Amino acid sequence: MVLIDQDGVIADFERGLLDTFRAKHPDAPFVALADRRGFYAREQYGPAWGEAINEIIRTEGFYRDLLAIEGAPAALEEMLKVGHDVFLCTSQLVSSRWCVPEKLDWVEHHLGGAWLRRTVITPDKTLVGDRLQPCVLIDDRPTVTGVASPPWTHVLFDAPYNKEERGPRLSSWADWREVLEPVFAAQRRQDR
Amino acid sequence: MVLIDQDGVIADFERGLLDTFRAKHPDAPFVALADRRGFYAREQYGPAWGEAINEIIRTEGFYRDLLAIEGAPAALEEMLKVGHDVFLCTSQLVSSRWCVPEKLDWVEHHLGGAWLRRTVITPDKTLVGDRLQPCVLIDDRPTVTGVASPPWTHVLFDAPYNKEERGPRLSSWADWREVLEPVFAAQRRQDR
Repeated sequence: MVLIDQDGVIADFERGLLDTFRAKHPDAPFVALADRRGFYAREQYGPAWGEAINEIIRTEGFYRDLLAIEGAPAALEEMLKVGHDVFLCTSQLVSSRWCVPEKLDWVEHHLGGAWLRRTVITPDKTLVGDRLQPCVLIDDRPTVTGVASPPWTHVLFDAPYNKEERGPRLSSWADWREVLEPVFAAQRRQDR
Repeated sequence: MVLIDQDGVIADFERGLLDTFRAKHPDAPFVALADRRGFYAREQYGPAWGEAINEIIRTEGFYRDLLAIEGAPAALEEMLKVGHDVFLCTSQLVSSRWCVPEKLDWVEHHLGGAWLRRTVITPDKTLVGDRLQPCVLIDDRPTVTGVASPPWTHVLFDAPYNKEERGPRLSSWADWREVLEPVFAAQRRQDR
């Protein structure tokens, strides 16, 4: 089973945020994508510009208009074709009324309506998965925690702000087979 | 851990559907709540009126305006207070653009904004839960299936259309302790 985060993994959150920030605040200092550190951009932008970041991600259209990350839609279809159970597994920004409906619109537009039946929206990703089969979560967040003991192995989707983390890492969607296969094989050896 | 379905368990879907149907089609035959059979009302309403049912549940405001089922909000707060991990676990009607945002509005209005951080929206409930602790899903659907082997025991929330099903059953929110405790105890004996 493959669980796949949305922002920063299939939807280009950081690119959308930076482009919108520079368009809205052309004279403000900004953080280039390669220099992003820490999961939350608002923290790196600090007290002077953090609130401007918060405002952007709560604006109508922000989630809807994110670009797809290169290769993601094709990789997801390939995974289905070879027989994986594939689900999107994304959290909502509770402080934005646009976040959830626009994430679903995004899925329908970029992946097709059938993927709405493969989209899980959850505040806690440790609740989601299947302990009885090999299971991974592909997520750019450095550490994914919650109330349960997760049934998945976390595969990091490569980002400038998660370079310090250890563990399996997917740097390009073109490599998904090579990265996931050894993770699944290790789980099978543990005879889950 | 307690997972709780939304429609028919905490939100009175059947009452909302019947009231709306009778208001919109005052001369049509209708099915009294006690006579509902089968999980899907549209099927019981048959070819003549099934499409009218479909139309109602896809209308703006339908999910938002459902009444709370008696005792549900209080029971959910009690469960939290005694230390259970409690999450709403609901599916979306993919054919309605109003369903998901209005379900979230409903949660915020009837349970409070903090419950948005306890709301999981999933097309497949067998993916959700925690196999490493006692775990139940309270759901009115006669059988809950999906791609995974569910980590929960299904506790039926009593409804006229699920009387035939066997297994633990919650008939009133006032009884939640008495119904859940033996289920948790049985799971603990299985040393999960």
